[in-house]
Amino acid sequence: MREKLTVIKVGGKIVEEDATLNRLLDDFAAIGGHKVLVHGGGRSATKLATQLGVESKMVNGRRITDAETLKVVTMVYGGLVNKNIVAGLQARGVNALGLTGADMNVIRSVKRPVQEVDYGFVGDVEKVDASLLSDLIHKGVVPVMAPLTHDGKGHMLNTNADTIAGETAKALSEFFDVTLVFCFEKKGVLRDENDDDSVIPQITPDEFRCYVEDGVIQGGMIPKLENSFAAIHAGVTEVVITLATAINGNGGTRIKK
Amino acid sequence: MREKLTVIKVGGKIVEEDATLNRLLDDFAAIGGHKVLVHGGGRSATKLATQLGVESKMVNGRRITDAETLKVVTMVYGGLVNKNIVAGLQARGVNALGLTGADMNVIRSVKRPVQEVDYGFVGDVEKVDASLLSDLIHKGVVPVMAPLTHDGKGHMLNTNADTIAGETAKALSEFFDVTLVFCFEKKGVLRDENDDDSVIPQITPDEFRCYVEDGVIQGGMIPKLENSFAAIHAGVTEVVITLATAINGNGGTRIKK
Repeated sequence: MREKLTVIKVGGKIVEEDATLNRLLDDFAAIGGHKVLVHGGGRSATKLATQLGVESKMVNGRRITDAETLKVVTMVYGGLVNKNIVAGLQARGVNALGLTGADMNVIRSVKRPVQEVDYGFVGDVEKVDASLLSDLIHKGVVPVMAPLTHDGKGHMLNTNADTIAGETAKALSEFFDVTLVFCFEKKGVLRDENDDDSVIPQITPDEFRCYVEDGVIQGGMIPKLENSFAAIHAGVTEVVITLATAINGNGGTRIKK
Repeated sequence: MREKLTVIKVGGKIVEEDATLNRLLDDFAAIGGHKVLVHGGGRSATKLATQLGVESKMVNGRRITDAETLKVVTMVYGGLVNKNIVAGLQARGVNALGLTGADMNVIRSVKRPVQEVDYGFVGDVEKVDASLLSDLIHKGVVPVMAPLTHDGKGHMLNTNADTIAGETAKALSEFFDVTLVFCFEKKGVLRDENDDDSVIPQITPDEFRCYVEDGVIQGGMIPKLENSFAAIHAGVTEVVITLATAINGNGGTRIKK
């Protein structure tokens, strides 16, 4: 039987404030078995960019990453936020290892081609190599992954944290029985967006299509669920969408084959 | 027979300018066998601190690291400089892995006790665990170490890069036949500081004592050499002090038992 692994993706807001970060690290440390943490850090990046007089331009919720912005996100995601989490986990007895996609060539990307929008130094994942990562995890190491990759030509690339989590989970499903958890500001996918308790406990691909047709699921939740189903089809056992304060619980919305 | 490993420490200046960095990475990539790179980054840290209005206070050449300065060095050393080197080495086919002492708990420090000077969040190395590092190196991974450690209580600590290099070399000498190379702005330890070609090719502990008594070796070179002898006594095979542009050569000053 394959060993279980939990990949947890948390957004920037949670890891950027001491109180929520400490709560998250306590909860994460309490998760049994093998695990991986993937984090964002957008608010801190925007804050540092502002302090440095670098303009933060967003298109469709994505950051336009010029050369100066790339320096900012490399410092914030790869340095400040990542190492703060690593040190916090080490203090909790978790043998964390902070990584970007460049480290051990874990995730190589290609700079997003310019179409309608020039996103700049933004990476679209091309290749994930999880073999060394898998060895380390088997030895008790807990990877903490920043939303950065590299192009194999010497450049770091800013990369969406949901994508990092999904691609890492898929690659690690070659070695482990993987559950991928997307932390979210709601308790899960809601049947009624005005009712926080109307969580849909489980969604199959057929149900997803119906919910979208009926307009129950809409907006940014559609790509999130599409990514979840893609992960399931690529070998991930289960995807959970839940509150960051509930990563240890049984709640949220579960997506299975 | 034990395998050879080269630990190379380069200062900030070399890794902070594109031309010298590229030359260094070419030379480092060309070194055969197992290797580790330890880097500084002080100039970039000072630059970012200035941009952010954080005052850089130095005492005896050491940076006073208050909470804001710690954020700056974590961003610059752990993020910007480290990941730039890692991506540059990956582009040269070197499977680099950027690390701070917090990652995999490789180097745990204790916050320097306040005596005459309060250095703030500065770490004095307490414990180095090179076992996972050794496994990775045997698998072809090349660690790139930033001058940061952690205290095991959730804090990162600013730590001298020469110390990181020396302690890492000592710990790895349990597993490898280690040569430790300190890159320097001169060709080696000079017999006459006004003659760049007056390199002392080899120094034993007895010769070192004589050179110090005669005033040939003085100032900052004394602690550097004391550290070198300490490394040799702790199991490192050879310490070399040489130019950053000569890490592949046979020049410099060699320190042996």
